[in-house]
Amino acid sequence: MAPWMLPLFYSLLLLQYSPPSFAKFQPRYFPSSINHPESRSLPSNNNLYKTKYFTQILDHFNYNPESYQTFQQRYLVNDTFWGGPKINAPIFVYTGNEGNIEWFAQNTGFMYDIAPEFKALLVFIEHRYYGKSIPYGGDREKAYKNSKNLGYLSSTQALADYATLIVDLKNNLTAIDSPVIVFGGSYGGMLAAWFRLKYPHVAIGALASSSPILQFENITSQYSFNNIITQDFRSESENCYKVIKGSWDEIDEAASTRRGLERLRKSFHICKNYISGDYVESWLMEALIYTAMTDYPTPSSFLAPMPAYPVKQMCKAIDNPKFGNDTFAKLYHAANIYYNYTGGISCYDLLDDSDPHDLGGWQWQACTEMVMPTNGNNKESIFPGSTYSYSGHAQYCEETYKVQPRPNWITTEYGGHDIKRVLKRFGSNIIFFNGLRDPWSGGGVLVNISENIIAIVEKEGAHHVDLRFSTKEDPKWLRDVRKKEIGIMKGWISEYYHHVTMDSHEH
Amino acid sequence: MAPWMLPLFYSLLLLQYSPPSFAKFQPRYFPSSINHPESRSLPSNNNLYKTKYFTQILDHFNYNPESYQTFQQRYLVNDTFWGGPKINAPIFVYTGNEGNIEWFAQNTGFMYDIAPEFKALLVFIEHRYYGKSIPYGGDREKAYKNSKNLGYLSSTQALADYATLIVDLKNNLTAIDSPVIVFGGSYGGMLAAWFRLKYPHVAIGALASSSPILQFENITSQYSFNNIITQDFRSESENCYKVIKGSWDEIDEAASTRRGLERLRKSFHICKNYISGDYVESWLMEALIYTAMTDYPTPSSFLAPMPAYPVKQMCKAIDNPKFGNDTFAKLYHAANIYYNYTGGISCYDLLDDSDPHDLGGWQWQACTEMVMPTNGNNKESIFPGSTYSYSGHAQYCEETYKVQPRPNWITTEYGGHDIKRVLKRFGSNIIFFNGLRDPWSGGGVLVNISENIIAIVEKEGAHHVDLRFSTKEDPKWLRDVRKKEIGIMKGWISEYYHHVTMDSHEH
Repeated sequence: MAPWMLPLFYSLLLLQYSPPSFAKFQPRYFPSSINHPESRSLPSNNNLYKTKYFTQILDHFNYNPESYQTFQQRYLVNDTFWGGPKINAPIFVYTGNEGNIEWFAQNTGFMYDIAPEFKALLVFIEHRYYGKSIPYGGDREKAYKNSKNLGYLSSTQALADYATLIVDLKNNLTAIDSPVIVFGGSYGGMLAAWFRLKYPHVAIGALASSSPILQFENITSQYSFNNIITQDFRSESENCYKVIKGSWDEIDEAASTRRGLERLRKSFHICKNYISGDYVESWLMEALIYTAMTDYPTPSSFLAPMPAYPVKQMCKAIDNPKFGNDTFAKLYHAANIYYNYTGGISCYDLLDDSDPHDLGGWQWQACTEMVMPTNGNNKESIFPGSTYSYSGHAQYCEETYKVQPRPNWITTEYGGHDIKRVLKRFGSNIIFFNGLRDPWSGGGVLVNISENIIAIVEKEGAHHVDLRFSTKEDPKWLRDVRKKEIGIMKGWISEYYHHVTMDSHEH
Repeated sequence: MAPWMLPLFYSLLLLQYSPPSFAKFQPRYFPSSINHPESRSLPSNNNLYKTKYFTQILDHFNYNPESYQTFQQRYLVNDTFWGGPKINAPIFVYTGNEGNIEWFAQNTGFMYDIAPEFKALLVFIEHRYYGKSIPYGGDREKAYKNSKNLGYLSSTQALADYATLIVDLKNNLTAIDSPVIVFGGSYGGMLAAWFRLKYPHVAIGALASSSPILQFENITSQYSFNNIITQDFRSESENCYKVIKGSWDEIDEAASTRRGLERLRKSFHICKNYISGDYVESWLMEALIYTAMTDYPTPSSFLAPMPAYPVKQMCKAIDNPKFGNDTFAKLYHAANIYYNYTGGISCYDLLDDSDPHDLGGWQWQACTEMVMPTNGNNKESIFPGSTYSYSGHAQYCEETYKVQPRPNWITTEYGGHDIKRVLKRFGSNIIFFNGLRDPWSGGGVLVNISENIIAIVEKEGAHHVDLRFSTKEDPKWLRDVRKKEIGIMKGWISEYYHHVTMDSHEH
């Protein structure tokens, strides 16, 4: 989960602050508590990991007195499969994204699946300002109070946290020669890739799954994200695409009269407290976008309980309607696959943005460094036409946080332009996985950069599908992807051991 | 010039705050205005460069309101030789060290010497908090007032400054495809090497001259620095070594009586205001250490006007004394080669530490991240035996700045341990030059790491001798070193052009 939270706040804000030309078309991404990760009950007792805390410094890069403040950073450990320091058994570290680390640990089954084979220690580190890893004594309200306190939430600080924690952990385990591989998906995948590039002395390699490190500035088209969603639905059926594409005008028209609004309310089962055409559209867009993103080949419950191939299911609901030929009815039943697959929801509260602070961190990150233009919709788009507006974004950030984004920082700090040329003879041991059904894949690395910086591209894949727990129902292409990833990582480790052995012979 | 400033403050402090067991043996490195870079008159009008300023952000890595403050960063440009953007002619950037950038520009003649051949633009960027690149509106007193204001002086911020400035400059020159090579000597060399490792998308290569990036933690022995100085003098003559080594006891003994102190004063031409045995020893040590460091094969004026091969000259003064056989007389005349080669000094003021803020920045850096243990002296050392004390250092920093060093940060951020293994398959295009007569060479990279990370080691060389202006008197080994460096850099550039051409054919 991750960069795709951006549009949520993005949109919420734009709806609230409403520069009129954008308001309407901003999906209201993550509003409902159904699929709100924080509010889903996470098992506090389980066999997946033990919870630990590390005393982390507030600012790694300056030395004024405030920077010396510390906070408790949570990390999860599973040593069940670890071969231990004597054999320099590897350590697999998940570089946590923007959210509760337990949620990521529980949804990154791939690491558990392969740990026995690698005799690997598993470590999941929580990103600062999320979950329980909150500065200012864990006081979330204080940490999120203003830009002064939120200021220490940044990707560079997070990477330095990971480096500091891993170095300390290895010392404590007397496992200095155990090779570390970092794993991550989405924003966590971006962090994993950047970590390998910036801290090669801490991690020997990175598996960066669905990490859109090129979705900055103009490296990737602002239309790419929605073009992929368009293609996802269109590939199921032309009719499905057309019905959805045509629906926005219908909703607008309905929303222009009181009677039409009541028809919308009834068709989409909207609760009585509030309704508007824009909010209905955002609600619908959220369902389409996240379903495209998590169009997995097996049932999932990453965002919400969903069937296998949910895009296909949505299009089925539209193409073969069981409840009449009305466009709104078709769309309602399609959206229900995302919002209400297990049933039980009687009405949708469009104003429900409960627990905003759980994910508020990403809103801040989008307002400082994670300026990722994805909102463009061209003529063919399944969504209404629109153009990304940096100034609208900046205005929101000023109004909300009194902060100015630094839209060129990410490429200055981590690169991105001409990545193939830059990394061709620099760096090694990174796997970039992307599934082409994932709207974020447009901002991913899709071609091999060198012998050791590899792109694995799977046209049937969705957002970090490779990191999920494996099941017997997994299609062959998914098993092949994982097999390839395992093989490459084995190569990194055996090469590492080869050098360690040579070094110890030299001494 | 750089890490070797460390011991100055180190020592000054220890003398002032005097943990008794260390006080005596700490050289008082840079006290006199003779060789004080800031106080030497720099030509303000010259043909070497034009002065420019860039509006730089105060903190790149956090986003609280203070981080948005800006300051004017000075940089020097020479475009006389530049081939321009149309032919993607290269840009050579000097990554400034701890001091006035004009001084480094004037002492890095190698860049001027080779610029015509490469058709290169020359850029020298001043390090924040030095020279004229002072935050808080250029108010040096305010910037250096306390740890809150000084806190933004760090190597990571400096590297981010360089990246930001270079990216902006290339955009302004519409020279986006011009390859950048970074150059630096001493601390500037450390920055150049780290810059290539952290910002490979900004610089295609680095010439890191005499950069002791391994002089951290226990990677390099604390005895290495003084062992090399010992060897420098001993290689000239065993007698020279013995006279110097024996002198400390003699000075101690003399200093223990009033009459002996007056003898010291007379022998060493010490001014009337102050004298002590410790200060005389520090004064002497400074001469020996910096002469070893700048033991160049031709006359120099980098630190002070000095003859060619000054260590040899010092030993001559000791081995063939023209002014009698008294130990102190011999040492006085030896020290004079460093302090007073051009004559004119009537007495030495041991308390002269004029203009402390010019270099005070390094003292801060040594108290935060640049914790480089170099003070150990073993039994064979030309200096009295001593052991490096981290706690003494930390105590000083606490008392002076109310700041705690982070002694493990540099290796966490930049690496250093097992560097050969780590960089063997990661990174490229770095030249590490070291001259083995340079006491800092012990902390340098002295063996090739890979085909593209090359160590050039010259046993006759001193501190970044390769970066000096070339002269007709340069020995063959020095010409060979430079030839090799030029050849390697040409390789980087032609490989870069090859890829640029391929890329443009692909588009």
